[in-house]
Amino acid sequence: MKAWQFTNTHEPLVLTEVEEPTPGPGQVLLEMKAAGLCHSDVGLLEDEGWLSMLAKTPITIGHENAGVVAELGEGVTEFSVGDRVGVCPTTPAGAPGYSFDGGFAPKMVVDAQALVPLPENVDFVQGAAATDAGMTSHAAVITQGGVKAGDTVGIIGLGGLGQIGARVAVLAGADVYVAEVNEKVWPLAEEIGAQGVKASIAEFEDVTFDVIVDFAGFGTTTAQAVDVIRRDGTVVLVGMGKLESTINTKSLILNQCNLKGSNGGSKEDVAGIYEYMATGKLNPTITTIGFDEIADGIEKLKNGEVVGRLVASYE
Amino acid sequence: MKAWQFTNTHEPLVLTEVEEPTPGPGQVLLEMKAAGLCHSDVGLLEDEGWLSMLAKTPITIGHENAGVVAELGEGVTEFSVGDRVGVCPTTPAGAPGYSFDGGFAPKMVVDAQALVPLPENVDFVQGAAATDAGMTSHAAVITQGGVKAGDTVGIIGLGGLGQIGARVAVLAGADVYVAEVNEKVWPLAEEIGAQGVKASIAEFEDVTFDVIVDFAGFGTTTAQAVDVIRRDGTVVLVGMGKLESTINTKSLILNQCNLKGSNGGSKEDVAGIYEYMATGKLNPTITTIGFDEIADGIEKLKNGEVVGRLVASYE
Repeated sequence: MKAWQFTNTHEPLVLTEVEEPTPGPGQVLLEMKAAGLCHSDVGLLEDEGWLSMLAKTPITIGHENAGVVAELGEGVTEFSVGDRVGVCPTTPAGAPGYSFDGGFAPKMVVDAQALVPLPENVDFVQGAAATDAGMTSHAAVITQGGVKAGDTVGIIGLGGLGQIGARVAVLAGADVYVAEVNEKVWPLAEEIGAQGVKASIAEFEDVTFDVIVDFAGFGTTTAQAVDVIRRDGTVVLVGMGKLESTINTKSLILNQCNLKGSNGGSKEDVAGIYEYMATGKLNPTITTIGFDEIADGIEKLKNGEVVGRLVASYE
Repeated sequence: MKAWQFTNTHEPLVLTEVEEPTPGPGQVLLEMKAAGLCHSDVGLLEDEGWLSMLAKTPITIGHENAGVVAELGEGVTEFSVGDRVGVCPTTPAGAPGYSFDGGFAPKMVVDAQALVPLPENVDFVQGAAATDAGMTSHAAVITQGGVKAGDTVGIIGLGGLGQIGARVAVLAGADVYVAEVNEKVWPLAEEIGAQGVKASIAEFEDVTFDVIVDFAGFGTTTAQAVDVIRRDGTVVLVGMGKLESTINTKSLILNQCNLKGSNGGSKEDVAGIYEYMATGKLNPTITTIGFDEIADGIEKLKNGEVVGRLVASYE
């Protein structure tokens, strides 16, 4: 079969003939249906810093994967041939495309423990994209933030993750207020179902926030969140816009603020985002390309020419 | 009866004849047995900023109180005359000495909801001191930090609160490591039962911390705690040595650190610290004076002449 392989930094991806893999004990063979492209793929191709994360080279990359179980390895009982699944990239099994050959290929072998059942009414393209941005947003808002119906929630930053995070908070039954410096995306806040949108979280003077999730992470955004959160409220930091933030510790202490970092997510978060998608009410914007266009797609990502998430569909 | 009253900033406390109070509905009359003196009493006498927190002037101050129930107001059923109790200063009833006349008097009226039963084998002097420093330390280590048996805990700052906090963590069954810049108090860390003591928390290179409680709060101390905490670990900030801290947000996110402010405590924390005291294994250092010496005592506190907590005993 033909697979898109990474050989070295500053080298283009190459479409190479490789052997079809077979599943070992505890593993399954997936017939790939969709694989997402990610800014970290751009990073891998351009920055030597990523090399140390690869278990081998050349390696087939692609870490946002969805497909159908095509063959079971020894001892796999939780899944059956024909099951539609997404692949969680953060289990002890390792990350596809880093720890082992990933999803930019027609077939992929993966540990069964990394699989998350994909509901019938969620398509593979959404199912693949959800394993990275969806999982991360769900982890930040629901798992770390603990957002629930009736909460008043602030979302800082309406980029790729923030859009999903804000929508998840709305669907969880929260009243959502968005802080976003780029006024061009303000109309999107209303579409998502937010109660209001302003340039900074500090401008919502009459709102008492139970939870604020900072998807921007520009230092001042986090500090403002700590200043305005209610007593015993939670501020979740996801974005790394800047690598430090000067926090007013008096605010942190007097508000008994709970400031949490959120990094990645788990299978439960992938399953959680699939549940929201299955309601039909969470539809992140996705641009679809074909398998043959993967190398071009990464170039487009690099040049900022993509709207929403970019996913290669193999169907 | 004679009570120590505050009249105005920059004026000395005056021992004045006042009427004996009577308990209203839901209140009790306490025969005072001990009242702690606190650095905030020094602040009140010297800094106009505190004036706005007082419900009236003149006012009898004293917010660390223990005594015996002497009379029940209408509707009080949870307590009986003769009960030994401490007074939690942070309930909705308000703070003694701020919201209503406090404990620097032979008798005090207080809402029954603020009372915490004092175990038989905890004396009134310890019982009074525990309502402020003890409560605050317990809240930081146990309630906010969630410290439990088997945890590895870092305590930053071995001052008044940190000493109690470190001891509570040891008694809770944790392995405790202390960071303290003042080498003169290092021997105390060993007495408390700590596994080790160094100048900074970052120097314990081989220790993986589940929880770190920063009683110093010097900005860098909190930042170091966030850097070295284990993934999903908790850093609690209590001390306000400086009013800001520049946090490495990459550490916060990658460690999924839970950074919490801790402010005061609750009746449960007072009850919790009484439980530890009742074991005989928690004995914070206390200097005792008589009722007549309260004004002098505040002067001694101001001049740094007091070892441990300062408590007026009325027995």
